[in-house]
Amino acid sequence: MSAAIRVAPNKAARALSLLRTVQFTHPPSCPCHSNPGYHHRDGTSVVSRFAERNGSKRRGYAAASDAGQLKEYAFEMAASSIRFGPGATQEVGMDLKNMGAKRVAVVTDETVDKLDAMRQVREALDREGVSYQVFNKTKVEPKDYSVKEAIAWTKPYNPDAFLAVGGGSVIDTAKLMNLYACYPDADFLDFVNAPLGRGLPIERALRPLIAVPTTAGTGSETTGTAIFDLASRRAKTGIAHRNLKPTLGICDPLNTRTMPAAVKAASGLDVLCHSLESWTAIPFNERTPRPTNPILRPAYQGANPISDIFSLNALKATIKYLPRAVRDPDDLEAQSEMLLAATLAGVGFGNAGVHLCHGMSYPISGQNPAEYKHNGYQVSHPIIPHGVSVAVTAPAVFRFTAASNPERHLAAAEAFGVDISNVKRESAGEVLAEVLTKFLAELGDQPRGLKDLGFTREHVDELVEGTIPQKRVLMLAPGLDADSLEREREQLRGLFESAMVY
Amino acid sequence: MSAAIRVAPNKAARALSLLRTVQFTHPPSCPCHSNPGYHHRDGTSVVSRFAERNGSKRRGYAAASDAGQLKEYAFEMAASSIRFGPGATQEVGMDLKNMGAKRVAVVTDETVDKLDAMRQVREALDREGVSYQVFNKTKVEPKDYSVKEAIAWTKPYNPDAFLAVGGGSVIDTAKLMNLYACYPDADFLDFVNAPLGRGLPIERALRPLIAVPTTAGTGSETTGTAIFDLASRRAKTGIAHRNLKPTLGICDPLNTRTMPAAVKAASGLDVLCHSLESWTAIPFNERTPRPTNPILRPAYQGANPISDIFSLNALKATIKYLPRAVRDPDDLEAQSEMLLAATLAGVGFGNAGVHLCHGMSYPISGQNPAEYKHNGYQVSHPIIPHGVSVAVTAPAVFRFTAASNPERHLAAAEAFGVDISNVKRESAGEVLAEVLTKFLAELGDQPRGLKDLGFTREHVDELVEGTIPQKRVLMLAPGLDADSLEREREQLRGLFESAMVY
Repeated sequence: MSAAIRVAPNKAARALSLLRTVQFTHPPSCPCHSNPGYHHRDGTSVVSRFAERNGSKRRGYAAASDAGQLKEYAFEMAASSIRFGPGATQEVGMDLKNMGAKRVAVVTDETVDKLDAMRQVREALDREGVSYQVFNKTKVEPKDYSVKEAIAWTKPYNPDAFLAVGGGSVIDTAKLMNLYACYPDADFLDFVNAPLGRGLPIERALRPLIAVPTTAGTGSETTGTAIFDLASRRAKTGIAHRNLKPTLGICDPLNTRTMPAAVKAASGLDVLCHSLESWTAIPFNERTPRPTNPILRPAYQGANPISDIFSLNALKATIKYLPRAVRDPDDLEAQSEMLLAATLAGVGFGNAGVHLCHGMSYPISGQNPAEYKHNGYQVSHPIIPHGVSVAVTAPAVFRFTAASNPERHLAAAEAFGVDISNVKRESAGEVLAEVLTKFLAELGDQPRGLKDLGFTREHVDELVEGTIPQKRVLMLAPGLDADSLEREREQLRGLFESAMVY
Repeated sequence: MSAAIRVAPNKAARALSLLRTVQFTHPPSCPCHSNPGYHHRDGTSVVSRFAERNGSKRRGYAAASDAGQLKEYAFEMAASSIRFGPGATQEVGMDLKNMGAKRVAVVTDETVDKLDAMRQVREALDREGVSYQVFNKTKVEPKDYSVKEAIAWTKPYNPDAFLAVGGGSVIDTAKLMNLYACYPDADFLDFVNAPLGRGLPIERALRPLIAVPTTAGTGSETTGTAIFDLASRRAKTGIAHRNLKPTLGICDPLNTRTMPAAVKAASGLDVLCHSLESWTAIPFNERTPRPTNPILRPAYQGANPISDIFSLNALKATIKYLPRAVRDPDDLEAQSEMLLAATLAGVGFGNAGVHLCHGMSYPISGQNPAEYKHNGYQVSHPIIPHGVSVAVTAPAVFRFTAASNPERHLAAAEAFGVDISNVKRESAGEVLAEVLTKFLAELGDQPRGLKDLGFTREHVDELVEGTIPQKRVLMLAPGLDADSLEREREQLRGLFESAMVY
């Protein structure tokens, strides 16, 4: 910082003075500066946010020692390349050949292995003479031990490229197979998100990974995130770094035709919450600490002007097309648009993050005390699908977060078709919660709160304790008091209680 | 194609039948199907476009032999990672160290070499102990021979990474230095766009390239395009492939403060036309031929649902912030927003393409028969800045293209603030041309047509001949009759004539 000023004192001083002028166009009593839970965001102005970081002069990394106290000042946008088109799966053999791949690990699960998508993949690889082996033992909602099995399978084969064909669980597992193939000596917990793991950054370039999603939900084909259960800790966690993202996502709407209606609905609700949570996450320049090295800047960095564009577009598309896609299996337009929305939302939350709905969903799905089995899921075991566990708290969550940024919550309500011209800012949360409730009810076959999933008030403490370790997403939750664990517990308890019935 | 049907006859046949149903919700007499220059686009529906490709069943690449007749069916979105923040230039030393770079070629020009941006870069590299050499001989509006000089400089140094600090000319030159460093035995014309060059795809992964723009215009930090003059042919051409794109663009609003007002205006007009042209380019699924291998899919692939999002956002931001950025050198918010808009537009046109304004601009800037020197440019030689030569034809161009897609042209006029509720579709071109004219006039110091740049009707034939080789962009121009060279010439002549005075 002092070095920068030394080099060009006049320019730096002038910039600082100008940016201070911008800053103080906010009245000095503006709540931005006194209350960390409050933030301006109109989706357009970047500099007004810059100005809030205590003066925006060239600060440089000479100031790294006090970076812990400094707010973030930059954001980074990274996404896999995305190819979109009906039938594009057939190109994958040529892609892998173009990359020079000679030993491809095709990662899928036993269900998808029987579907047309995998037939197309085999055909495409055979046609180009690309050598491959199929690993089809991926588990839905992967556990650390199922991931370790997959990694163990990888070692003797030593593939030079990966191809994931399936939903989020498959794609996430393939990312982890790739990661540990490139770090053969790493301990499994090295890269796992802190505090459960050591949260090391991924510094090496991984091998090529092409992801072909067969659901329209997780957006995993574009993100650097992989989620799994850490069985020993009974907690959902994951690994997240932009270097984990696939090289290419091939989004082929012919591959999502096979989803049953219940899976379409649950996956689509995941998209809805990805968009809503990333749109309402705290802004990147309210996040602390400022990273001391750009490789430490998290992918979940808070809302920013580029993620906003993706999140809001995905939200609008989901509201428009999800009900159609669920209602009519022949509505290929709606299904195709939902696949696009899932990918757009993936770019949005992949670079901004999610917060409370996702943080609270992990213990909901994981604990499932009444062995609830969601209607329409053709599995033999109890299951609260990820998208269902995420959406079930949404009305309570956005009623809670609205005070932090009423404008954004009103904009979200407007995306649902609410005329917000006469709605007061104080009512933003209530209005958004109401229209979300209506949307979920009309979608059909959704629980009307945690009670319908078999939770009672006596489960709340355990739900809260299962949420607390989700630091990575909780730090992006507007209005949550992250400085006091006691206060955070109390707020989460309130949220779970009000999510019992909506 | 037949293989796909053989594997799963029922599913494939059902999908085909369903998609045909969608297709024929257009009346059979719909002009989409009879007139290749006409196309629907409402910015939302993907499948209605899919359906237009003569049935959307799994076609596969068994059909490659007739690919020349088939329209495109997929699009691909690729962009450099983007980091955005005031002062982010200071991180570049750590980035290069993180990448393991040991010999960095820092590419700039003599002007930028003296600016604060280069001071920050040197300081950042020195702080991390990253070894580098500076090449500062890049030329504004690079020629093949200036590019070849830069390439010759690269060979003995053999850098393992590149860092470009400057405007589009610098970043483009650095891309080419990187390309030919990775293909040391290639002929210069191998990768140059056809028909002037051989247009080969870039199959190898290039070395890391970080781009730090010092202007808010070209968006070159996100694109796989590099533009230069082929002196022997007196034509502007370039190399374009997504593998040419930088690894990372660092957009630091502190670096664009140094632009003089005239450069801000011209660069901003480039952004305006990037957005408008990519927004109105023919849609990806009207482009022929369908590529026989995905590596042959051009970056300039036509408008698509993802590029649309970027283009329209960039257009709105440019309309809002460019006049402020030009008027007030202390309006850092407007300048910062223009840098963001330039990058967003870069992602948009980098994946969709530009068309007539850009295609026609190359001979305008190149020929400059009256040795026009634009006001406010501190150079010793005549110059029609790129942004000026692009915008000068815009009113004529969009008046011409509007018939191909009135809705999109009306949406663009609405972005300028026009109340379009009572505007007839037939008037879309006129309304957009008028508001563009007004915008250019109010920006100040812009020519009111080619006449003000010193062109007369006797120059039109040469302008037309200079435009004809720009196949790569002309193929994306809606309404241009690409099947008949004679008709194309006549249309271009009409466009240049009507651009004489606006």
